[in-house]
Amino acid sequence: MGDLERLPVGIVGASGYGGVQLVRLLMDHPGVEVVYLGGESSAGKPFAEIYPHLAHRVDLTIEPIDLDKIASRCQAVFLSLPNGLAHTMAPTLVSKGVKVLDLSADYRFRNLETYKAWYGGERNDQETSELAVYGLPELYRDRIAEAQLVGCPGCYVTTSLLALAPLLKQGLIVPESAIIDAKSGTSGAGRTPKTNLLLAEADNSLAPYGVTHHRHTPEIEQICTELAGHEVMVQFTPHLIPMVRGLLATVYATPRDPGLVREVMVTIYTAFYRNSPFIRVLPSGVYPQTKWACGTNLCYIGIEVDPRTDKVIVMSVTDNLIKGQAGQAIQCLNLMMGWNEILGLPQLSFYP
Amino acid sequence: MGDLERLPVGIVGASGYGGVQLVRLLMDHPGVEVVYLGGESSAGKPFAEIYPHLAHRVDLTIEPIDLDKIASRCQAVFLSLPNGLAHTMAPTLVSKGVKVLDLSADYRFRNLETYKAWYGGERNDQETSELAVYGLPELYRDRIAEAQLVGCPGCYVTTSLLALAPLLKQGLIVPESAIIDAKSGTSGAGRTPKTNLLLAEADNSLAPYGVTHHRHTPEIEQICTELAGHEVMVQFTPHLIPMVRGLLATVYATPRDPGLVREVMVTIYTAFYRNSPFIRVLPSGVYPQTKWACGTNLCYIGIEVDPRTDKVIVMSVTDNLIKGQAGQAIQCLNLMMGWNEILGLPQLSFYP
Amino acid sequence: MGDLERLPVGIVGASGYGGVQLVRLLMDHPGVEVVYLGGESSAGKPFAEIYPHLAHRVDLTIEPIDLDKIASRCQAVFLSLPNGLAHTMAPTLVSKGVKVLDLSADYRFRNLETYKAWYGGERNDQETSELAVYGLPELYRDRIAEAQLVGCPGCYVTTSLLALAPLLKQGLIVPESAIIDAKSGTSGAGRTPKTNLLLAEADNSLAPYGVTHHRHTPEIEQICTELAGHEVMVQFTPHLIPMVRGLLATVYATPRDPGLVREVMVTIYTAFYRNSPFIRVLPSGVYPQTKWACGTNLCYIGIEVDPRTDKVIVMSVTDNLIKGQAGQAIQCLNLMMGWNEILGLPQLSFYP
Amino acid sequence: MGDLERLPVGIVGASGYGGVQLVRLLMDHPGVEVVYLGGESSAGKPFAEIYPHLAHRVDLTIEPIDLDKIASRCQAVFLSLPNGLAHTMAPTLVSKGVKVLDLSADYRFRNLETYKAWYGGERNDQETSELAVYGLPELYRDRIAEAQLVGCPGCYVTTSLLALAPLLKQGLIVPESAIIDAKSGTSGAGRTPKTNLLLAEADNSLAPYGVTHHRHTPEIEQICTELAGHEVMVQFTPHLIPMVRGLLATVYATPRDPGLVREVMVTIYTAFYRNSPFIRVLPSGVYPQTKWACGTNLCYIGIEVDPRTDKVIVMSVTDNLIKGQAGQAIQCLNLMMGWNEILGLPQLSFYP
Repeated sequence: MGDLERLPVGIVGASGYGGVQLVRLLMDHPGVEVVYLGGESSAGKPFAEIYPHLAHRVDLTIEPIDLDKIASRCQAVFLSLPNGLAHTMAPTLVSKGVKVLDLSADYRFRNLETYKAWYGGERNDQETSELAVYGLPELYRDRIAEAQLVGCPGCYVTTSLLALAPLLKQGLIVPESAIIDAKSGTSGAGRTPKTNLLLAEADNSLAPYGVTHHRHTPEIEQICTELAGHEVMVQFTPHLIPMVRGLLATVYATPRDPGLVREVMVTIYTAFYRNSPFIRVLPSGVYPQTKWACGTNLCYIGIEVDPRTDKVIVMSVTDNLIKGQAGQAIQCLNLMMGWNEILGLPQLSFYP
Repeated sequence: MGDLERLPVGIVGASGYGGVQLVRLLMDHPGVEVVYLGGESSAGKPFAEIYPHLAHRVDLTIEPIDLDKIASRCQAVFLSLPNGLAHTMAPTLVSKGVKVLDLSADYRFRNLETYKAWYGGERNDQETSELAVYGLPELYRDRIAEAQLVGCPGCYVTTSLLALAPLLKQGLIVPESAIIDAKSGTSGAGRTPKTNLLLAEADNSLAPYGVTHHRHTPEIEQICTELAGHEVMVQFTPHLIPMVRGLLATVYATPRDPGLVREVMVTIYTAFYRNSPFIRVLPSGVYPQTKWACGTNLCYIGIEVDPRTDKVIVMSVTDNLIKGQAGQAIQCLNLMMGWNEILGLPQLSFYP
Repeated sequence: MGDLERLPVGIVGASGYGGVQLVRLLMDHPGVEVVYLGGESSAGKPFAEIYPHLAHRVDLTIEPIDLDKIASRCQAVFLSLPNGLAHTMAPTLVSKGVKVLDLSADYRFRNLETYKAWYGGERNDQETSELAVYGLPELYRDRIAEAQLVGCPGCYVTTSLLALAPLLKQGLIVPESAIIDAKSGTSGAGRTPKTNLLLAEADNSLAPYGVTHHRHTPEIEQICTELAGHEVMVQFTPHLIPMVRGLLATVYATPRDPGLVREVMVTIYTAFYRNSPFIRVLPSGVYPQTKWACGTNLCYIGIEVDPRTDKVIVMSVTDNLIKGQAGQAIQCLNLMMGWNEILGLPQLSFYP
Repeated sequence: MGDLERLPVGIVGASGYGGVQLVRLLMDHPGVEVVYLGGESSAGKPFAEIYPHLAHRVDLTIEPIDLDKIASRCQAVFLSLPNGLAHTMAPTLVSKGVKVLDLSADYRFRNLETYKAWYGGERNDQETSELAVYGLPELYRDRIAEAQLVGCPGCYVTTSLLALAPLLKQGLIVPESAIIDAKSGTSGAGRTPKTNLLLAEADNSLAPYGVTHHRHTPEIEQICTELAGHEVMVQFTPHLIPMVRGLLATVYATPRDPGLVREVMVTIYTAFYRNSPFIRVLPSGVYPQTKWACGTNLCYIGIEVDPRTDKVIVMSVTDNLIKGQAGQAIQCLNLMMGWNEILGLPQLSFYP
């Protein structure tokens, strides 16, 4: 794959954490060349002014968002914007033949009514929206490979679904028994300054938030419903953890078959993910740490069965900004291009 | 309460985190005077050599553990030792008329067989053990007031039980539905150096441990069983959080009455704890942060009900080394002495 | 000191970190009653809405800033506002007989030209400004006791001066050789959200800032000049440390007398601060940790002399929000009221 | 560089932080194959048992240390052991033709008397020691390229020397004026559990240590002396910072020429390091953050000149475990093999 063949790609919303992860990862990707960085508030600024540590490798200036220009220069574009903006751009970009990978919530819902109920605003892109594929490769690899528009799930949803999918798909649990107790580092909330995300507030403390009504709930339920084959509701509780990166979902559920043992579960998970190079099912008795996944596109999964209480407990960890955001989008692009799914994506964390 | 009347107390195991919390808190307690610090490995060392920041207030030297000497000097003694040591000392101390507050697991179990099954070792103190009262004042205030020997519960159990007690005592939930997802700062594991507790390992990471088999489980179940009036099993999952102090228990359970709403729950909790000065039941929609409790003997409790999934979610936070350890023991001593329960115990955290 | 005699005080700027520290500390102060909380953006809000963990003790609502109302209700007022606001309020408050303790830079400079050069803006309060006393009790105890208006120094300056003062006052060093390498937790930058103070940015990282031109430099030099008796310039380099609270100043200087040994230095410091209850000069060979000071009004000082390089190295630590901010102002109030300097101020940190 | 040509290398001391960094980095190195992992206490354990997150890529078991076996299998070996062990192995390995890269202090001193004075113990390897080259490529690139035995400097020394070298080599400063105020994350102290390195102790705190007598002092002075051309002594003060990785050296010195301005200094540094791909001299007014270097072999350097105080301030940051340890050793190996210096070494951090 020589330089002549590199795919020209753009990133809209380059100054946020999604943007800088994409830039960082794509610099090491042998198949693409970043030719465009776009943004509103940061337009006109050299990227290296915002992130000086990348000055020796990134010589681009952030440009105003101009869909024509993007389409003329890029064959694929990542939209890394706050919710509610991508759907004003994607229709035009798609119509001009650009492959679009959206990192926001705009294209994650099959039913736009659900989107509007939880995110508000109007949507005039029903037709485009119907083209969108849900960008979780471990579940929708084939559809992604043929998509032109992908709505990539974020960190909480990805990590939760990777823990739950085998249970639901194989009918191993009572779906409505699922409880997801999720814990995330603060970078998941983005780079816009807010009081509760200050180090002085968030460090050395720990708190739940959005209990019972976090808007990732309907997204998790949409996919769980699809996997189970009937409507499923789950309990989802996010917590803010005093660390930069990393996400852990501790998932509790009641097995249908009380005789199911841990070793069988490990075998089932290993088989379910046998073609998923980024999923690492851990041996019996090993539980994952978030740090293992940091700086990689991996998801480590540990499984426990409690015969006393008749519960299965699945623990999954990811780097919320890689497998939970930018890395996942690149994994989708790899599939859309027919490349090896792992191309350019890191698989080894720096520990400690 | 003039100086002349101060109660002479001792601390065995003064060099660990339990010890230094006790010393720190008792320095500000108007009713006691610390007259003895004991330890094995640190015997002979001035306390100020181990904790130089207290040199201006603490002029004691750690002495070898000598039960006769303790009994001759102290009217009450705190045992802050690793599990399995207190039961070799308490019988003698009790027989000599000393009030004993044990911070280890030795005197927390009504049934010594349960203790031996989970902690190992032999026990020859059946008789003494029968005198022991479980040192959770919010549930056993009257018994503690009359006790000579108190087995104080630790951080995980205290925080979990304070969240669960009203639900179980009032019969509001299906007891076996209870799931406790608990998160603790690393000081809960003590001061003995271990690799997994190094800052380099534990910081910026997050992990579950002891899943399905942590030895606080039988202790939680013992009290839940007593509250519910029949045998109860619960799911308990601890997690190590990258912070020094603080503990959060996120508790999930299924209500017996699906029509129970949040506001009613808040009223029930407020009534249940109306005579408990350290329990702060939060208004509807407010969730606790661990930092609020740090440096205090308080437990903040937030309550949520999810009518969609038919679950109640109770979130409780404490300072694991105060309400979860040394402060609780002092609260028990206050009751044993007939003093005001809050005497000498901090109620205002330093925030942020 | 019964409740009847409590001094009615107010806090302007109650919602920031200075405000919440003042409220917290004053709740435990036996000589005062907080009767007024003022603020602009938070006017109308119950204090407990901003800081829910204090709801059980603080029942005040933040009021608009009204100088007449303050003067009619309060005998003393703390101004905890951004730089440039206090000087628009202090003249009126002083003229109405209120004791004013300003936590901003407005009244720290003897020469208003210096203030204007570093902070900008106009000043029309020359006369009031001349009444102001510099609020560092360890150096200006007597003047503070007689003042009606005190300009309290902040965390960097306080910690640096406490390390340097004995050296300069006793003529022990070449003044222009002084280098202050200072390190602060991020709470020192306040509660207003800024990108570089987010946990995601500041945690697990470390950086210098304001190198050679931080505006605390002229304030440090003003006092150093007074202590030395001739104009002194110093090197001051602040660093942002990934922690909430605490400040360390590592000060390097060349002794005038190359034969000065460490033990003599310790003796000199101990003598210099013999009447300063909050200064703890450490024994030879013990260096301070910031954590020792956290939650207290103490400053710990460690001293080292390097005969090889002919340098003296003084290390001082404080809690930046207590001795470096709110606690210092209360210490000044104690002096202004003729009370014991330590009244209501904590002297024991919670460790770890 | 096909697989057939990969250089077989070994790592002795594979279970510590140096070992796991080497393994991690070498997995991505196109020129080598790790064929041997050795250790004492961990011999017999699969590497994946100690570091489970690498199980999918590392299938080696830690073997007892057997010099013959190492020499028969490896063409190069990294010794990542506590000080005082490498010198018992290197003579044999060198005599058998193996290239040796030592990460300990054993081969950093030209004069074994200096080593013995600071590290103790006897040395019987004078001859081998004379072959050793100091492994700081930016200063000794040519000698390293021809060496068979390299003593690689650690994190404090590397970061300090990279800041100081241009000043000393070009005679820009008064050498004895140099003060190095260095700040390191706790991983620099290794993986052996010690109380002061526990998260509960070290987090949310900050402290100096080894003031005036840290044993990296003679090593820094040895190289400074060589650069300056006459004997130089420096002040070196290390501090422990509550973070995992990263090191900042803030270096103060007095310029010989008081007219030297910042822009000229930046030009001089840029020229000095023009052939050093891992050194990033920052533009005027930009100061480095440790996080920029984390996960890379880079050293960022910011420079400030203070005409008021007549001081130059140089700030350098590295990842203490990469450029300060394992990455540096690999950079040396690259030179010894005649490969491109940057081969297999990361240059882009994951931010935030």
